[in-house]
Amino acid sequence: MKAMGLSRLVLVAPQSFPDPVADARASGAGDLLAGARVVGSLEEALRGTTLSAAITARRRERSVPVKHAREAASELLGHAEHGDVALVFGTETSGLSNDEVALCSMPVCIPTSPGFSSLNLGAAVQVMSYELRMAALAPSAPPVQSDLAAFEDIEGFHAHLERAMTASGFYDPANPKRLLPRLRRLFGRTRLEREEVNILRGILGALERKPD
Amino acid sequence: MKAMGLSRLVLVAPQSFPDPVADARASGAGDLLAGARVVGSLEEALRGTTLSAAITARRRERSVPVKHAREAASELLGHAEHGDVALVFGTETSGLSNDEVALCSMPVCIPTSPGFSSLNLGAAVQVMSYELRMAALAPSAPPVQSDLAAFEDIEGFHAHLERAMTASGFYDPANPKRLLPRLRRLFGRTRLEREEVNILRGILGALERKPD
Repeated sequence: MKAMGLSRLVLVAPQSFPDPVADARASGAGDLLAGARVVGSLEEALRGTTLSAAITARRRERSVPVKHAREAASELLGHAEHGDVALVFGTETSGLSNDEVALCSMPVCIPTSPGFSSLNLGAAVQVMSYELRMAALAPSAPPVQSDLAAFEDIEGFHAHLERAMTASGFYDPANPKRLLPRLRRLFGRTRLEREEVNILRGILGALERKPD
Repeated sequence: MKAMGLSRLVLVAPQSFPDPVADARASGAGDLLAGARVVGSLEEALRGTTLSAAITARRRERSVPVKHAREAASELLGHAEHGDVALVFGTETSGLSNDEVALCSMPVCIPTSPGFSSLNLGAAVQVMSYELRMAALAPSAPPVQSDLAAFEDIEGFHAHLERAMTASGFYDPANPKRLLPRLRRLFGRTRLEREEVNILRGILGALERKPD
């Protein structure tokens, strides 16, 4: 939860709280656990929320539309601007009851392998928290490289490479085959940076001058 | 892993395996754990793979493009049709070392809260496995290169390049600076194909034999 940027934890009728085992497992997130609100019922926990998602693996009646985690996260996030929203999880052993699911705005499932749909509680919380964070980050610009080499630097490198290959006998201009286009494709894919072009040309220069 | 449809687990130099604690925790997925392949090194684990993702929270040099989990999952899935791909995780306490990350095709991070970026191992495995499953459910994977070079071919190229650079005087093993990591980064980004590795090694070989 904490690593995904969530901070508000509500515990419904916990068997034991505070609990030294929980404290130990919360390493680094003890503040979040210590600040948990403890309530007696799910109704009380949901009071004041405008949208709540019941995370459940159980097959519901076919007619109930069950949203997938990603779609639900996006919807929750959109509503979070206007009011409190909640992710609701059941116990490790039995999940949420039908009555508990019915209290929530929507049932949500995490897609799993048909043959083995059991996710433990921590895993389910992780996936939903992660999807909320991803929804919050969208639309995200992809990380980009800085300092890309200029066109002319890359052309200089290709010319140098061709000279070195020709002098060494690896490349025969009279019988070029597809060598040069293949090398252009290879280095074109990689988005060479200026410093990398310098390194590559340094290697070529050193190999050309190789002592006998 | 099992709930997300993954079945092949490789353990690198495990402290204890098989282990009754692990067996107990694998409830329902004991078959997967029992079928794990145990190897002595990460190199051995990666042999035969064509694409590998190093999951890491550590901040790399600012210039290294680190893919996010979702984008990486999509790329891995696309390549999985043509060859073996791998998700690589470090230990619970210290994650992957820089050297281990360098052996993989790409560093991948899971977006976290800036103030608290610590995800435990199980959480990271859950997120990456989930993203692979979501990518598999997505209507269309982006087109990918086929014929990617295998891990051992790329390692062979790097060893050859290092020999040639050393012999030519361009690289001084006593004063390595950041040359080898930079070259790994450059060629790691480009997803070398088998034939391209052959071309690059051919060029190196010809330059090494360069007539006086």
